[in-house]
Amino acid sequence: MISVEDARSRIFAGLRPMGDEIVALADGLGRVLAAPVVARLTQPPADVSAMDGYALRAADGVVGARLKLIGEAPAGRPFAGRVGPGEAVRIFTGSFVPEGADTILIQENAEAADGFVTVRESAAPGQHVRCAGMDFAAGDVLLPAGRRLGARDIGLAAAGNHGWLRVHRRPRVAVLATGDEIALPGEEIRHGGIANANTPMLAAFIVAHGGEPVMLPPVPDDGAAIASAVDAARGADMLVTTGGASVGAHDLVLEGLSTQGFALDFWKIAMRPGKPLLFGRVEAMPVLGLPGNPVSAFVCAVLFLGPALRALAGGEAAAPRLEPARLGAALKPNDLREDYLRARLERDEAGWVAVPLPVQDSSMLNALAQAQALIRRPPYQEALEPGAMVEIIRLDD
Amino acid sequence: MISVEDARSRIFAGLRPMGDEIVALADGLGRVLAAPVVARLTQPPADVSAMDGYALRAADGVVGARLKLIGEAPAGRPFAGRVGPGEAVRIFTGSFVPEGADTILIQENAEAADGFVTVRESAAPGQHVRCAGMDFAAGDVLLPAGRRLGARDIGLAAAGNHGWLRVHRRPRVAVLATGDEIALPGEEIRHGGIANANTPMLAAFIVAHGGEPVMLPPVPDDGAAIASAVDAARGADMLVTTGGASVGAHDLVLEGLSTQGFALDFWKIAMRPGKPLLFGRVEAMPVLGLPGNPVSAFVCAVLFLGPALRALAGGEAAAPRLEPARLGAALKPNDLREDYLRARLERDEAGWVAVPLPVQDSSMLNALAQAQALIRRPPYQEALEPGAMVEIIRLDD
Repeated sequence: MISVEDARSRIFAGLRPMGDEIVALADGLGRVLAAPVVARLTQPPADVSAMDGYALRAADGVVGARLKLIGEAPAGRPFAGRVGPGEAVRIFTGSFVPEGADTILIQENAEAADGFVTVRESAAPGQHVRCAGMDFAAGDVLLPAGRRLGARDIGLAAAGNHGWLRVHRRPRVAVLATGDEIALPGEEIRHGGIANANTPMLAAFIVAHGGEPVMLPPVPDDGAAIASAVDAARGADMLVTTGGASVGAHDLVLEGLSTQGFALDFWKIAMRPGKPLLFGRVEAMPVLGLPGNPVSAFVCAVLFLGPALRALAGGEAAAPRLEPARLGAALKPNDLREDYLRARLERDEAGWVAVPLPVQDSSMLNALAQAQALIRRPPYQEALEPGAMVEIIRLDD
Repeated sequence: MISVEDARSRIFAGLRPMGDEIVALADGLGRVLAAPVVARLTQPPADVSAMDGYALRAADGVVGARLKLIGEAPAGRPFAGRVGPGEAVRIFTGSFVPEGADTILIQENAEAADGFVTVRESAAPGQHVRCAGMDFAAGDVLLPAGRRLGARDIGLAAAGNHGWLRVHRRPRVAVLATGDEIALPGEEIRHGGIANANTPMLAAFIVAHGGEPVMLPPVPDDGAAIASAVDAARGADMLVTTGGASVGAHDLVLEGLSTQGFALDFWKIAMRPGKPLLFGRVEAMPVLGLPGNPVSAFVCAVLFLGPALRALAGGEAAAPRLEPARLGAALKPNDLREDYLRARLERDEAGWVAVPLPVQDSSMLNALAQAQALIRRPPYQEALEPGAMVEIIRLDD
């Protein structure tokens, strides 16, 4: 058994980021940049007004001064002339500050009539002026390579005048569930059977983490059928199996893989749930073998598949983010396996409280779906009292 | 000026959830259930083994006992006979516990040879047996209507034997940016112009929140052009405008809307950034007018558009989730406007620390993209020292 950290490092070492493609800016959400986005322009492009009002010389911005209105500068249509002493130009938020002017008198502090403006509050130099380049300058790196794009990033790339983005291709991930007992959801289930939860769950997880799932038809516990499905998965950027990776006589996944030239990296990790995790490759294709229990499969997906998808997609190879929380119940000492307890989150004045669910059995998908976090317990962690600080991984997917 | 809370209530009051459609289970990620998902079967369907080992009578589970191996129960193929005294059946994780047996001897505690099993550790009644229905029973509500589906929910619906889901349709949301100065990103920008950040940013935001954006071509500051674009938006489930909702002479959005039978609900809220927020309807179509500054537009999207999309999509009509954090810098007293400061998050032993970005100008999209949270300050909140508890909204989109 190897440690969780060691397992993740070995998985990362076995992955190479996907090649590049271009996507239209508007299709960039959730994609990972393959190259930095560099500003093609300066923003704001010139000194601009931060308010609606009047552009003038600060020397004229004294209470009672009466200034001649010599023109208007709507946003997008800069005033072509120059503001001289005793003059003002009507201006709007985002308008270029006309030459000669160095301050903005906001309209609430002005009185305009008959082509003149009277100053009602003094206006200091630079007041309500946004300087050229205050947001960014041409040539600035706006977004680094490896960044997964959110809506704000799309806005920023747009502001930098990019209509296209260079991103990593989405990894195509084949999902293969094995087991004599599993039937497709919605179909008739014979005596002794159960519905296949793992294939659609993992496919959705892969989509949520930026990959493209290929749901292979589930295969029975039969070495030849598994071998043939593994062969059919070739060409995917990764193969994820689920089930069959336990210690019993029905561990046919390894048998099926081995007929396809499988090179095992590791099998079994010091973790609960998820001990029978498996990793290796069939030629260039990484193969991640998840346990068959849905809870174990999902927790292993959070700890290993999500980070692997991110690394494949060109993002940072990193563990899921751990956050601090206080424990909502007492816990016994932990053994040699790193433990991930399903928990709900409660809020009090001081922050988040993570309350472990009363039953932690790894077959309980219903409880998993209600959980809001996983509490991480390192190997051999001592007993904990309520209120102790723990580390959690949130499960908002 | 109305309060943020009042504004949100009025927006919610003006929205009706979308009608229903069915989607394949595998397409359910991110969709909102229009009907509860009810378990069609019991899980596990019978008492099953939680481990690989041997099923026997607990009365026989005494150290040294030698039991006759009368068969095998692989997962999915239940043993048809009955386990009598002095007998055992080979069993695997997930296998039905055969009739007569009431405990599982795990294989690590057994020695099998010549058709017999010798008990090496005693086995108590019920040990390693998962009872029928431990996860859920047929008829249980697995997922309530209104739930936005994550990967675990998809797995749970699958386990409950659903191949289809009844969900709300995605709201189609038209986005209209106005302004003489804006050009499409990537195109040539004339003197005085800027690239249109808001349309693609809001479109991505809408996708991230479960809607389908329609990016209307931006229009200049011209009442007739705006009116015609608003007319073209009819049939959308919502219209979002951006720009033109300030106090200057160029507030043509209201003028354009009013020619289309616009009924104003409110205009201007006591909030920073985002004061010139506007809401109303053109016939049945709700219209949300966001400010033109990208930061104000985005913050208003977080506070109003996201919740509106969720309500339209049939989910809970609720404000964004507030979380506790400690403040990482001193703040002056707040004025009458509810304030949302852009902040980065740092972690220390006790939890999250929110550090306000040094410049809070509402034109700074670059700073917004780097921010990880908004710090909420109620109207008239007193000055705060570093370490004070504040409420934040996270910006992981």
